[in-house]
Amino acid sequence: MRATVDFLVFDWLRAGELCARERYADHSRETFQQVLDTCERVAAERFAPANRACDVEEPHVDAEGRVVLPASTAAAVKAYFETGMQAASQDAEHGGLQLPCVVEMAGNAFFSKASVGCGGYTLLTSGNASLILAHGTPKQREVFAARELTGQWMGTMCLSEPAIGSSLGDLTSRAELDDTNDPLGPRYRLKGSKMWISAGEHELSENIVHLVLAKVPKPDGSLPEGSGGISLFIVPKWQVDEHGALTGVRNGVSLVGLNHKLGWRGTSNCLLNFGESAPAIGYRVGAEGQGLACMFHMMNEARIGVGLSASMLAMAGYEASLAYAKDRTQGRPVGQRGGAPVPIAQHADVKRMLLAQKAIAEGALALNLYCAALVDAQRSGTPEQKADATALLGLLIPVAKSWPSQWGLEANSLAIQVLGGAGYTRDWPLEQYWRDNRLNMIHEGTHGIQGLDLLLRKASQPQALQLLAARVNDTVQAALQDPAMADWANQLAAGLALVGKATKAAWASGDPAQAAVHGTPYLQGFGHLVLAWTWLDLLRHTPSGHPLHAGHRAACAYFFAYELPLAQAWLAPVLAGQSLLAALDPEVL
Amino acid sequence: MRATVDFLVFDWLRAGELCARERYADHSRETFQQVLDTCERVAAERFAPANRACDVEEPHVDAEGRVVLPASTAAAVKAYFETGMQAASQDAEHGGLQLPCVVEMAGNAFFSKASVGCGGYTLLTSGNASLILAHGTPKQREVFAARELTGQWMGTMCLSEPAIGSSLGDLTSRAELDDTNDPLGPRYRLKGSKMWISAGEHELSENIVHLVLAKVPKPDGSLPEGSGGISLFIVPKWQVDEHGALTGVRNGVSLVGLNHKLGWRGTSNCLLNFGESAPAIGYRVGAEGQGLACMFHMMNEARIGVGLSASMLAMAGYEASLAYAKDRTQGRPVGQRGGAPVPIAQHADVKRMLLAQKAIAEGALALNLYCAALVDAQRSGTPEQKADATALLGLLIPVAKSWPSQWGLEANSLAIQVLGGAGYTRDWPLEQYWRDNRLNMIHEGTHGIQGLDLLLRKASQPQALQLLAARVNDTVQAALQDPAMADWANQLAAGLALVGKATKAAWASGDPAQAAVHGTPYLQGFGHLVLAWTWLDLLRHTPSGHPLHAGHRAACAYFFAYELPLAQAWLAPVLAGQSLLAALDPEVL
Repeated sequence: MRATVDFLVFDWLRAGELCARERYADHSRETFQQVLDTCERVAAERFAPANRACDVEEPHVDAEGRVVLPASTAAAVKAYFETGMQAASQDAEHGGLQLPCVVEMAGNAFFSKASVGCGGYTLLTSGNASLILAHGTPKQREVFAARELTGQWMGTMCLSEPAIGSSLGDLTSRAELDDTNDPLGPRYRLKGSKMWISAGEHELSENIVHLVLAKVPKPDGSLPEGSGGISLFIVPKWQVDEHGALTGVRNGVSLVGLNHKLGWRGTSNCLLNFGESAPAIGYRVGAEGQGLACMFHMMNEARIGVGLSASMLAMAGYEASLAYAKDRTQGRPVGQRGGAPVPIAQHADVKRMLLAQKAIAEGALALNLYCAALVDAQRSGTPEQKADATALLGLLIPVAKSWPSQWGLEANSLAIQVLGGAGYTRDWPLEQYWRDNRLNMIHEGTHGIQGLDLLLRKASQPQALQLLAARVNDTVQAALQDPAMADWANQLAAGLALVGKATKAAWASGDPAQAAVHGTPYLQGFGHLVLAWTWLDLLRHTPSGHPLHAGHRAACAYFFAYELPLAQAWLAPVLAGQSLLAALDPEVL
Repeated sequence: MRATVDFLVFDWLRAGELCARERYADHSRETFQQVLDTCERVAAERFAPANRACDVEEPHVDAEGRVVLPASTAAAVKAYFETGMQAASQDAEHGGLQLPCVVEMAGNAFFSKASVGCGGYTLLTSGNASLILAHGTPKQREVFAARELTGQWMGTMCLSEPAIGSSLGDLTSRAELDDTNDPLGPRYRLKGSKMWISAGEHELSENIVHLVLAKVPKPDGSLPEGSGGISLFIVPKWQVDEHGALTGVRNGVSLVGLNHKLGWRGTSNCLLNFGESAPAIGYRVGAEGQGLACMFHMMNEARIGVGLSASMLAMAGYEASLAYAKDRTQGRPVGQRGGAPVPIAQHADVKRMLLAQKAIAEGALALNLYCAALVDAQRSGTPEQKADATALLGLLIPVAKSWPSQWGLEANSLAIQVLGGAGYTRDWPLEQYWRDNRLNMIHEGTHGIQGLDLLLRKASQPQALQLLAARVNDTVQAALQDPAMADWANQLAAGLALVGKATKAAWASGDPAQAAVHGTPYLQGFGHLVLAWTWLDLLRHTPSGHPLHAGHRAACAYFFAYELPLAQAWLAPVLAGQSLLAALDPEVL
């Protein structure tokens, strides 16, 4: 994978050029390479060996109520913190490495490939700290975020509740004002239950910083309706003084139970009660009613991160099944009788399954890193670059999250299939990758919600669509110059036109409720177009002498021959204005 | 599900009319109904409650080397034998119920839906007994098959070996002739290893009848090459005398280890050694060199059975997620602000996921039962009916096995998605269904092998294709008479023409090696056409006053709008004669 990462980061996305910008002036291509070297090495040495244990030794609660994890998980997390990656993209003034997001994501890719279960703790802590740095007071940054950036404390995101699922506006956790003058911020007492809290309880760090969404009651004691009434609070597991010293008092955050999951078992996942047996002290971050806006500040990075996990699970499965297929001999080419069995990588259908995995894993990684580069443009580009990057990211984030989640899962299924019965056993890692990857269509905005986000919010903005179309057209025009790519360029142009038509068709009524019916099929068609564009653009940046050229060419050929036609099929009901689902009465099911 | 089964068996496939045939003359629609009643009840009472235990209490080997299963598995297997279903379709002279295959499969569907893990033991025993009844000597039938039909003994199929996977011609198990005059059949000593042996070891019955493929060495001691040199042997776990009494001597069949699987854990799966520490005595079934032909005698029923397992896992997931979606309230219709949350079954994307599951589960079940009815036509039809059924079955069996396996798995993934985070936990059965179902694309001929079987063997016979085309056209012509179905009829006719073109295109070179590249995409396109035909045919047999009409109409509409267009996408590279995979050097991967 390293050669692919290097190509994507340095040749395709030209991260080296970022060093000309003030924010990254202390860096060079060499320091970026060193970061990737470190990540690749630590991931291989500490994360990969811990991946099976974190699955089979699932987190459990001991007699003292502590959540027990394998020692190898703790060692992996510690090794991660020692790399400094926890503060990779943060400002130097906060102790960060001030790396571009694209280098941070590329580095984290190695950890995700080695063990998503071990990586859950650090990714959540990183997101938590970023949010406090962006929206917290100087004191909150100093006390909470700074300790998270070193790994002394860790963090969570507490959004959902047992009764509400994705419908955050209905949350019922309440925060009653206690004292507006606490040095750590306006102080509240929280009461409520929070569900699906990853890394919600463990003994990996001396404290856990929960970021909790709750509502401040109105004067009559009722909670404000809808998402506009949501505020955000820092609720530490252990209470702290204004200097961040632990007071020894346990805050009112209690573990109700662990969720026993299909996969991704290495990361504990909890139901937590706040303010049940003792008061749960929380400090508001940002203004009252701005909780959701604050929480979603880091949403782009979080969703790229989920997509990256999915891409890397796909990559892990691809590498393992490719190695197996080159090694395992069985059967002979069709039509050949006698002779020695050949490696199964020579059978056409096995080649199909391997090439599909390559196209998915590498294509998805490329898209994730492309989005990370857009985050960098938002952070350090010219005003025009910032505006363009924001518009493009809006459109691409639902794809960067959902496409790897859906097709990375399919890639893992193909990896199992390459191994046959062996792939179905726990003697090989493929089945774990597949189980782990199944989460990615669910968390951080379900697949259906990504479709609604794309179609109802993002694709309803003509300017953003035009911007993306211009970028796709750049690739088309460049590829048309090369006879070896011209057919694909024409197919890509036709696909772009089709997505444009589908967008108009979905919105034909102007009514979001009618458009909503098309969310997921539209997302899938749109996503395959984006990946076809990605592959053609990758190929045109891989000169024929490049060591990756033949592989990129095969993956691009595969994508245009076998995958892009599916976009047309998914968009067919959108283009036809199919009203079946809108009209369907669930009682006939 | 019962209403669907009744509709399929009695209204659509008109099983009642079979009672006019001599073979089924002792039966009536009422006795068929009683069989289904019993199966539905016993499955619900004994199999369903055992399904979780057989997953979480995975088979293990105790200190005495015995394979330990949960008590509830033993109780479920015993309850199954007490229904008499073990001998459902066997001749009355062998103690069978002489039921049509379509009724047997419909009855077994309830057991598969309740627990595939518990059902593995009985299905293998049933297939084993059928094979001995078909190819064994009278003595072998009396000693071995008869005891399997009562459940006194159980059976296995020992085909694969550690080094050969699906390539049976390369097997190295050898059988040395011992005595040609043994009353139980020509007696051999076997030596070799057999891998992936489901139900290969357990304590559920007093003996286990292994049916083992092995080669008889040539005079020079070498093994004959290829599959033509394979013979079939009965190798009991415990040695028996000519009357079937246990001699108390353990035969040389030893358990090397259990495979630890992703799913379908309730059925033990073993690596067995034959003739390692003690001689493994075996009795040949059928002629020398005819082992594979004998073994594949029951292949159609076995592959329908695998398809049925996949269909029923899809059905189980559909029913569970539908019940959840009607009960769980969350969110509001798009565009509506305020008001109480609604059941999630009212959200368009949830409706899409439920309707997709219905179209998959019920459509796949219909196809499986259609094939079972063709087996009945083979057994008891007129000579013309027999010939037609044989030709049609040839084409449809790869689809009846692979389509439910691929799309039933997708249905289970959608069921998980409907529940969101809850579906990802082991508090709900969805994740187990998904894990269990992943096996079905692997065993009993992998997905890729089904594609080769269809394209290289079956679809290369124009007569069979013409016969299927005639049946599809019957449905098209009938549906064209009804304006409410005419559009779908035209789409089906166009799909049929496209598959015809794809068949020609795949075979354009006349070279099986070049055609083979298209196996899986062709299988998928062909499969979706068959299911579109199935749904339109189901709908035209469901009059508008029928309680199932609205549901069938919705599923049919879904299939033509959302699914059939995919066939065109999969067939695109076939039609284009895409040579990418043939030319691909795996070293560029």
